[in-house]
Amino acid sequence: MLNPADTAFLETLAAALPEGVISAAEPRYLAEPRGRVTGQAGGVARPRSAEDVSVILAACNAARVGVIPFGGGTGLVVAQVRPDGPPVLVLSLERMRAVRAVHPSENVMVVEAGATLAEVQAAAEEAGRLFPLSLASQGSAHIGGNLATNAGGVNVLRYGNTRDLCLGLEAVLPDGTIWHGLKRLRKDNTGYDLRNLLIGAEGTLGVITAASLKLSPIPAAIGTALMVVPSPAAALELLALAQSRLGGLVSAFELISGMGLSFLAETMPEQRQPFAQPPEWMVLIDVGLPDGLDPDAALAGLFEAAAEAGLVLDGVIAQSQAQRAEFWSVRENIPEGNRRIGSISSHDISLPLGEVAGFIAAGAPALATLGDFRINCFGHLGDGNLHYNVFPKAGETRADHENSREAIKTMVHDMVHARGGSVSAEHGIGRLKVEDLEKYGDPAKLAAMRAIKAALDPMGIMNPGAVLREAL
Amino acid sequence: MLNPADTAFLETLAAALPEGVISAAEPRYLAEPRGRVTGQAGGVARPRSAEDVSVILAACNAARVGVIPFGGGTGLVVAQVRPDGPPVLVLSLERMRAVRAVHPSENVMVVEAGATLAEVQAAAEEAGRLFPLSLASQGSAHIGGNLATNAGGVNVLRYGNTRDLCLGLEAVLPDGTIWHGLKRLRKDNTGYDLRNLLIGAEGTLGVITAASLKLSPIPAAIGTALMVVPSPAAALELLALAQSRLGGLVSAFELISGMGLSFLAETMPEQRQPFAQPPEWMVLIDVGLPDGLDPDAALAGLFEAAAEAGLVLDGVIAQSQAQRAEFWSVRENIPEGNRRIGSISSHDISLPLGEVAGFIAAGAPALATLGDFRINCFGHLGDGNLHYNVFPKAGETRADHENSREAIKTMVHDMVHARGGSVSAEHGIGRLKVEDLEKYGDPAKLAAMRAIKAALDPMGIMNPGAVLREAL
Repeated sequence: MLNPADTAFLETLAAALPEGVISAAEPRYLAEPRGRVTGQAGGVARPRSAEDVSVILAACNAARVGVIPFGGGTGLVVAQVRPDGPPVLVLSLERMRAVRAVHPSENVMVVEAGATLAEVQAAAEEAGRLFPLSLASQGSAHIGGNLATNAGGVNVLRYGNTRDLCLGLEAVLPDGTIWHGLKRLRKDNTGYDLRNLLIGAEGTLGVITAASLKLSPIPAAIGTALMVVPSPAAALELLALAQSRLGGLVSAFELISGMGLSFLAETMPEQRQPFAQPPEWMVLIDVGLPDGLDPDAALAGLFEAAAEAGLVLDGVIAQSQAQRAEFWSVRENIPEGNRRIGSISSHDISLPLGEVAGFIAAGAPALATLGDFRINCFGHLGDGNLHYNVFPKAGETRADHENSREAIKTMVHDMVHARGGSVSAEHGIGRLKVEDLEKYGDPAKLAAMRAIKAALDPMGIMNPGAVLREAL
Repeated sequence: MLNPADTAFLETLAAALPEGVISAAEPRYLAEPRGRVTGQAGGVARPRSAEDVSVILAACNAARVGVIPFGGGTGLVVAQVRPDGPPVLVLSLERMRAVRAVHPSENVMVVEAGATLAEVQAAAEEAGRLFPLSLASQGSAHIGGNLATNAGGVNVLRYGNTRDLCLGLEAVLPDGTIWHGLKRLRKDNTGYDLRNLLIGAEGTLGVITAASLKLSPIPAAIGTALMVVPSPAAALELLALAQSRLGGLVSAFELISGMGLSFLAETMPEQRQPFAQPPEWMVLIDVGLPDGLDPDAALAGLFEAAAEAGLVLDGVIAQSQAQRAEFWSVRENIPEGNRRIGSISSHDISLPLGEVAGFIAAGAPALATLGDFRINCFGHLGDGNLHYNVFPKAGETRADHENSREAIKTMVHDMVHARGGSVSAEHGIGRLKVEDLEKYGDPAKLAAMRAIKAALDPMGIMNPGAVLREAL
């Protein structure tokens, strides 16, 4: 059982640290974006260095006080707040936001965990390079949180998840020891992959304080198109065609549903829509090409070949930067449209690409057995990652269906699991999906996870109750 | 302390398994390619399924008998044989070599661990796809061994190391439980990254029995060039130029030294050399391009721009498949040339790209303080991965310098470490580099590795003495 971060503990800790590191936890450290849970904490620590973090974790470990690492607070699975149990210490990385170094000729940069993703992108761009991770909350999400949750986003198809963009870490382990692992190497086979173990562990195995990140060349030219497809199956064939014609240069391939467009028309009429008649399905395609390839010609050629094969019905290629931005704003406003309608249950799922179309076809009739719902299925189709959100029919509200939420979630997750999919593609487990992980996770993997947690954090202080149920 | 795999143990185990799984260990299971170490073993197990492997590990765990997973036996750091201690059981995956499934539309295949890398490549090609991992021993190395050692090779620059090509694993953990983790997903954030923990663990945390692997589209056209560069520094500038012009489509960028060419001329005069006057430094460049880009034009354009910037002195672009193969045979025969000369000490190192030229410049004068040596520095420059091999001067043999080996190795590794590099870039630790890992590894990471090993393999049966010193 953990001990509370009480006044006596916090006063002793504050005395061991530079002025101003420890303070009371303002409400912003106790909230999460969906407003489902309010956290409680004895205080907040805002360290300025890995050494500060080391002092904090060593003290918490000795006193058996829980610690919640806190980044931008944008996570969607309640990993960043703890609603119950003895009050914890929130450990915010907000003061550790330096870009420590940029090495353009190596395509590497070293940044501290508290830098926002947008700041990291900007620092890369300033050096003439691309840091390709891109997601809706990039203005406030910290790169440390992106790493801790192995964030995904819209460019995974070409550039990978956050773990694929990280070469090395500086991190503080639960006993307060600092791992100096900020290597800038593309190849390094010296022992177990502690880097990838900490990435995606959601702060349950230690605190990431800095990272060395892979940069990429900025593509010479970028092209964007919207293409109307007759079905998700056709969209997947279009993806394969695009990949084989463009050799891995497709950076985004996003599915947009007619339902999502109608939600936009209803809730955000100011959003200009690309087609007069909202299609049932369309895809947003981004390509980033090297010198010598013209994006217009490449996308027009793709459209022509796809039309011949019956894979596309209509399409439009952005003719300017402004039009690119307009196309992307359709995609980016869909979550806000969803929010205004109010979903009963939202799912961040992934499937083998070969199972996607079958799942979408089977999903609606299955859910119809539970009630009369509207489904907005959209997202990162190129990665097999769908945001599959279920809404009340027009005229009803989510409050009318509170009782259905659990049954809907279970049905969707059961179907996804049966098809070899994942019930958390890019958002993680947090506290929201601990039961899902227990239900759908492989028992051997779960046992190994528990053994690793007990080995690296024997006092159980790190983000207690996230990912794994607390050992009491 | 481990118990021996003695006759009584092996008879009991054999009775619990299908006919013919357990037998005596032939000499081929006790040898490693450099001939430095001979292993000893009580017997060999050749399972046909993950279930067989489960029975074997559970029995070894219960009896505290050591197990050495054995793939193609091509590893260079003595992970595959154990010269001393109580005789172990060798566990060969050679009978588990099926390609379980190929999903071309998903760019995924599922293979068993005992398939050779060449078989995996061939199965991908048959499905019209590319499995890009490529290395000298691919005809005999098993994909399971590639995974266990996170093998590198010549295409890492574009496609990553083996870990970057793996989506999921089936593995047997030390207590005999089977992890069914053959996911075919690009995004799956459900818990700790057990996949990457087993990848690169060199069989010390469990046995990989199958894997789902990422495939890529086959590039529409491939181009190959040899370019003579004035210096390693110029080669690195040429790399940056190529990357920015070709947007990540450079698949190999290999450094070849004049010393390597002169070794070839001396020991393999039948190998045709590309330039009449062997240059001091040259690079071999492979590009894989999509439809619409001509490799000849792309490489000629690169050469022209590089020549203008003073980065290249001469160059030749392959005009046929046969000429491509000839260029590559120069690169691929360099290790054989080295073997015939006989190195005193060989090093598989990596450096931040920005440190490579400085290291090469400093290496020769530093080693000259130890004696009169010849250095062949070559390899995967695009990854910062050099094979830095030290030879006796002409007329002497390695036997004349046995006493210098330790001093040479220490000097090279100290220099690499001081520059933020790795003393094992792609070969791993095995038993050969355990002391190097202890000397150069980060103490916090080493402590975490020991804790993980103790947690997942508390009896210490898995590949005892590899990577980590045995806890006695």
